[in-house]
Amino acid sequence: MMQIDRLIRAIEEKGNPTALGLDTRLEYLPPSCVREHPGQPASAVRDFNFALLDALKDIVPSVKVQAAYYELMGLAGLACMTDTLTEARRLGYVVILDAKRGDIGATASAYSGAYLAPDARTSVDFMTVNPYLGSDGMRPFIDDCRKTGRGIFALVKTSNPSSGEFQDLMTEGGVPLFARVGDKVSEWGEALIGEEGYSSVGAVVGATYPEQGAMLRGRMPHTFFLVPGYGAQGASAGELAGCFGRDGRGALINASRSLICAHKKAGTDDFVSAAREEALRMREDIRRALHRN
Amino acid sequence: MMQIDRLIRAIEEKGNPTALGLDTRLEYLPPSCVREHPGQPASAVRDFNFALLDALKDIVPSVKVQAAYYELMGLAGLACMTDTLTEARRLGYVVILDAKRGDIGATASAYSGAYLAPDARTSVDFMTVNPYLGSDGMRPFIDDCRKTGRGIFALVKTSNPSSGEFQDLMTEGGVPLFARVGDKVSEWGEALIGEEGYSSVGAVVGATYPEQGAMLRGRMPHTFFLVPGYGAQGASAGELAGCFGRDGRGALINASRSLICAHKKAGTDDFVSAAREEALRMREDIRRALHRN
Repeated sequence: MMQIDRLIRAIEEKGNPTALGLDTRLEYLPPSCVREHPGQPASAVRDFNFALLDALKDIVPSVKVQAAYYELMGLAGLACMTDTLTEARRLGYVVILDAKRGDIGATASAYSGAYLAPDARTSVDFMTVNPYLGSDGMRPFIDDCRKTGRGIFALVKTSNPSSGEFQDLMTEGGVPLFARVGDKVSEWGEALIGEEGYSSVGAVVGATYPEQGAMLRGRMPHTFFLVPGYGAQGASAGELAGCFGRDGRGALINASRSLICAHKKAGTDDFVSAAREEALRMREDIRRALHRN
Repeated sequence: MMQIDRLIRAIEEKGNPTALGLDTRLEYLPPSCVREHPGQPASAVRDFNFALLDALKDIVPSVKVQAAYYELMGLAGLACMTDTLTEARRLGYVVILDAKRGDIGATASAYSGAYLAPDARTSVDFMTVNPYLGSDGMRPFIDDCRKTGRGIFALVKTSNPSSGEFQDLMTEGGVPLFARVGDKVSEWGEALIGEEGYSSVGAVVGATYPEQGAMLRGRMPHTFFLVPGYGAQGASAGELAGCFGRDGRGALINASRSLICAHKKAGTDDFVSAAREEALRMREDIRRALHRN
């Protein structure tokens, strides 16, 4: 089965196009969680992640795990990342590893081999990749997607304040760089379109740039978008509506800090209830915005 | 001390602007090495790396460790990577982690925190980064370089066949994208120029594109280049001469497969002697090319 089809069906089943972003930093945990594992931050993060995964499994269809925060904790952190990915898959989530890897062909094969290949040591359903090196750097990932039904999301237009510095540069023919990258991403994905009409080769498109998002949506009808930037990064549900197609499909909205730090905003240690409440609020918020669209 | 100054002095002391690229795959090892560690590929790779590090320490000033090949081996591989980085630093090499990380600001901080920050768990002297996200994604790395004297090499023009797909796109003013990225890299490094005249913020410039390399050299007088593509990837010493300044400085040439697989070409299991011989040949080859320049 193609994971892109599974993702789309899971979104529809739960009526919720969102991903729980596990960008878990120790500072985000309630003090009580940290105290339970003195001197073992990675164990505290694992317990926290496992509790959130269990709490949101009936509401949220997908999980995005940000590799950087686990690398920061060294080998224990990477073990925690592997455990989190495994637990998320066990609970039925569609699992995305946000690692933004990218290298020349031979080396890209090794990154793909680690996470996407049939014999990957740590299997994920999707992985984010950086396309700056061009087609031959993407080819190993795409070949593994073909073999396994897994997928990638390539950076096209990122959500950060200076994303326009290179991505918005105008190229020949009056086409900005991000749109040219988008066109290539479309092309890479052409042979991998699933039953639901979207390709295993997706794109990362930041919610913080609604105009560019809408432009890319029009330009890439068969490309599924992974959309960061909602909530803590400042984009509202109205702003991300343009990333969806007219059928209300085609995008997955990631929320990290707004979910994992919901307990801080609520002034409680009960992070499970706070995250559930915020996940339900977010689902409603996005539903309403898509209805207005 | 700034590591860029240490790198330049180490190159001059050894008369050899090269890095040993430890892109170590199990397939590259002589069968006898693999047999010594049944079922433990990461241990075999560690022994192989340690032997090469010891054998080349009087000839080669720097080591570049390619993260992908260690990630491929899972947690044992990452432990092997950490051990290799630590051993290389202990032996006095200038140590580069080739990880090509890059993300939005908050997440980039975590990657930088893992390897470049004052309290990094696994310290390296330099790290490669991907600049596609723009200045705010680079800022955390550059801030850590300022604090610690460490450095980065940002991808500008990569060595792979399809690197031109995006990197050579012509932007406004008739300037190709890679040159615009190069200009930004120069700008990011302006405040971090060491005693030897080069910045802690360097650039990756592939030897396989000599024209673009020479153009960037002219455009970025204070930027040190990390140059992949020599040897197994096809570039000759003559082709990479343009990456050096008129003073014969300003670039570090990486060789991975040509050194670590030298024993295969020589038809021997004695990888230590084969790598030493190839390292000496490479030093001569580059010296001669720089002399002609």
